[in-house]
Amino acid sequence: MLTVKKFAGSSAGSPEQLRNVARRCIEDYEKGDDIVAVISSGDTLAGALRKQAGVISGSPSKRELDMLMTTGAQGTAALLAMTLESLGVRAISLNAFQAGIHVTGRYGEARLKKIDGSRIVDELGDRTIVVVAGDQGVNAYHDLATLGPGGSNITAVELAGALKADSCEFYTDVDGIYTADPSICPRARVLRDVTYGEMMDLATLGTGSIQPECVERAKKYGIPLVIRSLEHKTEGTIVREETVLEKNLISGVALDKKADRVSVLGLRDEPGVAYRLFDILAKAQVNVDQILQSLGHDGSEDISFTCPEDQVEKAVETLENSREKLPFTKIDVDRDTAKVMVTGSGMIGRPGVAAKLFEALYNENINISMISTSEFRITCIISRKDGEKAVNAIHDAFSLDKTFAE
Amino acid sequence: MLTVKKFAGSSAGSPEQLRNVARRCIEDYEKGDDIVAVISSGDTLAGALRKQAGVISGSPSKRELDMLMTTGAQGTAALLAMTLESLGVRAISLNAFQAGIHVTGRYGEARLKKIDGSRIVDELGDRTIVVVAGDQGVNAYHDLATLGPGGSNITAVELAGALKADSCEFYTDVDGIYTADPSICPRARVLRDVTYGEMMDLATLGTGSIQPECVERAKKYGIPLVIRSLEHKTEGTIVREETVLEKNLISGVALDKKADRVSVLGLRDEPGVAYRLFDILAKAQVNVDQILQSLGHDGSEDISFTCPEDQVEKAVETLENSREKLPFTKIDVDRDTAKVMVTGSGMIGRPGVAAKLFEALYNENINISMISTSEFRITCIISRKDGEKAVNAIHDAFSLDKTFAE
Repeated sequence: MLTVKKFAGSSAGSPEQLRNVARRCIEDYEKGDDIVAVISSGDTLAGALRKQAGVISGSPSKRELDMLMTTGAQGTAALLAMTLESLGVRAISLNAFQAGIHVTGRYGEARLKKIDGSRIVDELGDRTIVVVAGDQGVNAYHDLATLGPGGSNITAVELAGALKADSCEFYTDVDGIYTADPSICPRARVLRDVTYGEMMDLATLGTGSIQPECVERAKKYGIPLVIRSLEHKTEGTIVREETVLEKNLISGVALDKKADRVSVLGLRDEPGVAYRLFDILAKAQVNVDQILQSLGHDGSEDISFTCPEDQVEKAVETLENSREKLPFTKIDVDRDTAKVMVTGSGMIGRPGVAAKLFEALYNENINISMISTSEFRITCIISRKDGEKAVNAIHDAFSLDKTFAE
Repeated sequence: MLTVKKFAGSSAGSPEQLRNVARRCIEDYEKGDDIVAVISSGDTLAGALRKQAGVISGSPSKRELDMLMTTGAQGTAALLAMTLESLGVRAISLNAFQAGIHVTGRYGEARLKKIDGSRIVDELGDRTIVVVAGDQGVNAYHDLATLGPGGSNITAVELAGALKADSCEFYTDVDGIYTADPSICPRARVLRDVTYGEMMDLATLGTGSIQPECVERAKKYGIPLVIRSLEHKTEGTIVREETVLEKNLISGVALDKKADRVSVLGLRDEPGVAYRLFDILAKAQVNVDQILQSLGHDGSEDISFTCPEDQVEKAVETLENSREKLPFTKIDVDRDTAKVMVTGSGMIGRPGVAAKLFEALYNENINISMISTSEFRITCIISRKDGEKAVNAIHDAFSLDKTFAE
């Protein structure tokens, strides 16, 4: 078994934390597994480095910022290797030059291009735990570049792919992917087994801790992902092509209270009106989330969309300024909205799911102002005050506290 | 003009210090010079890294310690490049992988093997100031290794050699190489121009700030070295093959009050006795400095040597324990000794120098207990209390406060 284990920088701030990380590596190493650990810069170190740069320049060059920031993960990787050695196992730390990690694109937001894993394979052959500095690669100029937020997660998944690992495990501060936010829904539980597709949705919903890009890449390589707790020795959530255990109609329910609804009323009912509206918003850098187009009255059309709270003003202003190009009657903004989303591959081909969801909300007297559905997902816009109630109602209606097998 | 400038880690601890360093680079850059700056890890950073490692393990592996410590110079180099950019010049930082610095030998004490300066040459061609992380190289295993104490000085001289630089400048906290320690001798002055040979001796005497190995390497490449102040804009000391300005008989006078004299009396006057004595001491790890062998009485022999204060006890104990192998009458220790040394290529072929020195000491009523001379150097062991007086007497006798040209 070859396992790539990814540890967050927040779990590498102190010697004691590094020992916890090391122990999670050693447990499986002692079972005979080959271990590659990917680690980010410890948070304290990364913060200190960023601060040093900030004092020197308000806008340091991204190339030099990457030279500076990559020292964090290299140093933290070395400290983890020392910790592993102090606990009696062979270990070696590798930076991007040594681990053969090649990237392309801009500094601070590079993209992984290719990994030459030969050095890692050699070291594993010597029964050495290999610690790789995350979020860094060497570009065509032989320079170091970081991948940006979540970069170490990408490093981990790509290493798992290049090394044909048996799994890629993410050690986090949560026990796995939950059916709903446990702080809202007391009966929420950790999903044992989800598909890549469900995980993509769950990750988008914000209930997961890794970005959708990682899931996509893992799916491409067919590498199972595991999301589990660093602290608790629970199994966590496994993400793979086919689920085995879970048979529920939906996997999870999530709540987003940070989106407002904007409705543009009385648009002309003519081809291209939606295109022009969203093109205008895109050019103004407004992030549009859910879209609902509905027939208005008298041959006119209404288009509603949700967008982040802090972008509503820009959206409205942009549309008002474009009124000549894109005539409409009025704009209606609802700042009191919440978005409730359910997801799960189990709903494919089961038309009753949406109805069951609407029923659950109806029973709680919750009004739905927008509905949007896709193959795996149903999203409802409701009143913000009803958010928590809706999550619990849906969680209960679909018996998410139990697996189907139970 | 291509100049390699070496800056100490102690001058890179704060943004203000980094700006000072940057300004010294920019002065010459604006004159049209090509600048390569070599910088060590800022002291604060290096200390913090070493401490982190120390908490994890009492004896971290040297390979991992080098992985950790090299991040210091890479980070500091990036910070210096940012500082240069913030002052409006083009700059780039390079680590050992990027600067093409190859080493061999052990971690923590690697030796420079080869520099492929092509990347640096390209960058200089774009009128970019190149900042190189000092004290690091890549070994045959593609691993980072440090060179050990003074490693950044070696990096600087070797880069100067590989790039065929016009000079290699060391920015220090002193104004240059002095004729004597200014705290002892008020009339001490900075030497303007010394030969590599003299500098080797001066470096050994401790009045200089760079290790003899750097001088040797500079001599091999024929690169002039400059030792100058970071803070004061003085010319400093230039070290090269042929001196131009200085014509004094001696270059400098130095005092060492930390050496004690040990005399082994009544050794057998037979071949190999000196070899056996110093072999015994070497195996006991005693650092022997000056040696004087003199004929004793009745076919016996006396051997005196100086060694560091804290090793005298070990030396005496070792010799007492070896008395069967190496018989002697008694050991006499003088803990009240000081060593006065003069050096200078000007004394070659001038037999009067030693006599003039002895006269200067005689005039001050200073007794000489041991004398040792070599081509460039005269060393006298005197009473410790006479140390400062001797330095001043010699400084005056040889008019070291004036250059011959004056």
